[in-house]
Amino acid sequence: MEVRARAPGKIILSGEHAVVHGSMAVAASISLYTSVSLAFHSHSDNDDTLKLQLKDMALEFSWPVGRIKEAVAGFNTAISSSSPTSCPAECLKSIGALVEEQNIPEAKIGLASGVSAFLWLYSCIQGFKPATVVVTSELPLGSGLGSSAAFCVALSAALLALSDSVVVDMVHQGWSSFGEKELDLLNKWAFQGEKIIHGKPSGIDNTVSTYGNTIKFKSGSLTLMKSNLPLRMLITNTKEGRNTKALVASVSERTIRHHDALNFIFNAVDSISKELSGIIESPVSGELSISEKEENIAELMEMNQGLLQSMGVSHASIETVQRTTLKYKLASKLTGAGGGGCVLTLLPTSLSGTIVDMVISELESCGFQCLIAGIGGGGVEISFDASP
Amino acid sequence: MEVRARAPGKIILSGEHAVVHGSMAVAASISLYTSVSLAFHSHSDNDDTLKLQLKDMALEFSWPVGRIKEAVAGFNTAISSSSPTSCPAECLKSIGALVEEQNIPEAKIGLASGVSAFLWLYSCIQGFKPATVVVTSELPLGSGLGSSAAFCVALSAALLALSDSVVVDMVHQGWSSFGEKELDLLNKWAFQGEKIIHGKPSGIDNTVSTYGNTIKFKSGSLTLMKSNLPLRMLITNTKEGRNTKALVASVSERTIRHHDALNFIFNAVDSISKELSGIIESPVSGELSISEKEENIAELMEMNQGLLQSMGVSHASIETVQRTTLKYKLASKLTGAGGGGCVLTLLPTSLSGTIVDMVISELESCGFQCLIAGIGGGGVEISFDASP
Repeated sequence: MEVRARAPGKIILSGEHAVVHGSMAVAASISLYTSVSLAFHSHSDNDDTLKLQLKDMALEFSWPVGRIKEAVAGFNTAISSSSPTSCPAECLKSIGALVEEQNIPEAKIGLASGVSAFLWLYSCIQGFKPATVVVTSELPLGSGLGSSAAFCVALSAALLALSDSVVVDMVHQGWSSFGEKELDLLNKWAFQGEKIIHGKPSGIDNTVSTYGNTIKFKSGSLTLMKSNLPLRMLITNTKEGRNTKALVASVSERTIRHHDALNFIFNAVDSISKELSGIIESPVSGELSISEKEENIAELMEMNQGLLQSMGVSHASIETVQRTTLKYKLASKLTGAGGGGCVLTLLPTSLSGTIVDMVISELESCGFQCLIAGIGGGGVEISFDASP
Repeated sequence: MEVRARAPGKIILSGEHAVVHGSMAVAASISLYTSVSLAFHSHSDNDDTLKLQLKDMALEFSWPVGRIKEAVAGFNTAISSSSPTSCPAECLKSIGALVEEQNIPEAKIGLASGVSAFLWLYSCIQGFKPATVVVTSELPLGSGLGSSAAFCVALSAALLALSDSVVVDMVHQGWSSFGEKELDLLNKWAFQGEKIIHGKPSGIDNTVSTYGNTIKFKSGSLTLMKSNLPLRMLITNTKEGRNTKALVASVSERTIRHHDALNFIFNAVDSISKELSGIIESPVSGELSISEKEENIAELMEMNQGLLQSMGVSHASIETVQRTTLKYKLASKLTGAGGGGCVLTLLPTSLSGTIVDMVISELESCGFQCLIAGIGGGGVEISFDASP
């Protein structure tokens, strides 16, 4: 019996940075997924290890389950799969030692915390059963598209699907989704994984990856929205690394230097997020046609990008995308922390494939990676493969 | 006796577009000039024409003064050089006919209104004396640097310097400036010329060109400021033509569509202009060093550019300049209407000439024209050449 789970990445449609200063932000799932498959070893396999394969990177890690038990059992034996719990600092240390043994290549050392999160979630939800877990992903890592959250959500989904805490229909063919209660549980587990990876995550990434759709958040409270508007975006990964903490701090410093101006800017962003969420939630048969809504969203994205630029979080690579798409009259904005990372470009329904191809080839010639994704689709799903 | 006058162009340092919606804007003179020389023909010349030579364009227009008298005298005989007066619509028609005769090349037809302004100012201030007027300019035409105002100011200065309304020291060697009363008078005449060229000019361009320095304006009132900060800018002319009226209208339309967001944006611009004028007026021996002031101004320019982008008046060519200068950590903003036109880049005092050369050569390779100018220097000046 093998279970596969897939969970989407996310983008910030509006409000990044300003949300730290009280503005509303809007995030949405994207139709690019991280998939996790889980298969327990049978006795006949004669393999008592837990294996983690990261297919895209051709990496495999494996531990005898006995060694995991030695490292973790003292901390998690009282934990049930139905009560998501933080990994204590001491346990994280002993898990860290297990991860270190695996000699992760220096260039991929950023994966270490993800592997730690894996060991914590696995051992809490499934104990110490030998198994092979395979991870593949359409999401570029560390580029602000929520790859780590998608990993934690897909992993939690696969683990819970084969646990006693969740009842799922194993006979259904193809992808199926979870019930509300199950989603809440796996979202909480995924958040525990995110904490191991990021320290103090906002919880937005795992929530979007779990429930899909669109979410608005302001002053720490999240509201799921029903999107009535299928949107398609070009996501350009500038591959420019950036330091999110430093960017957040630089906006705060600018706010101290130019208090009034920045506060007006944050208020403008708040208005934009409110308008945007209004358009997304407005009924299909409302006043505006799809193309009118798209035009409106493009304009709001352009406005938000200008405001992000005035906060100082743009970057030459982002300007390059901006300038390139502007030539085709397409609106772009950075998504996430800025200073590089990914840029969104709205692809209106009426846009010809030829234009899309031209834009992509021009952007790729700058060394960027281009992805096309639907916005605001479903969240995490699972599928079972009963074949031997 | 020949008189030469030169008058500077202008840039908008902050607040363009937002000023239409009640925000403060700041403009300043630049050390790029339009020069007008005026020499009356003597009887021995046996030349009873008025000649206008546009040296940079290798164009010369000329009219027998009798013909000008026929066209204008009915309208301006009651006008004295000390009372600046609008050109009546009927007179503008008969002047227009004189201009049309000159067969201005189709590609330069935009000059026609400037030639009309010339004929009105000349005949009001100097009547119908045969003379040759030669115009040269360092300012690119129609690119938002106030070339038409600089022309009207330099022309008015030359004309008034040889009139009874103004008393000037003809013996002084080299450039000399006017007294306050003379400046007020020539500024008013220049404004009459600007009205012929632009219909409803704001009066800012001719005021900056007349008085030089820096000026702040809000809700229709202008305040001259004493600048204590010598600034140097790279001015990049994208050579991209644009329609100022259409751009102003598009911001107003966006304000109707997104009322709250745009109002916050205009308020942010107002804060930026206030901060900027505060820095410019702050004493030399104040708290901040010159380089700290420059850093502050660069940041405010970057913020203003982001806000202009969010108003929708940027352009791919402006983004190209932006992206290029950002690579060298230099702040840029469009100046004037946007949609092309000119872009300002602050050149800090400490910046090496090598970097400046690199930036310029990269911008020129994009087909742009680069000019370097001091900001906030003196206004209109005259000089006499008594040699035959």
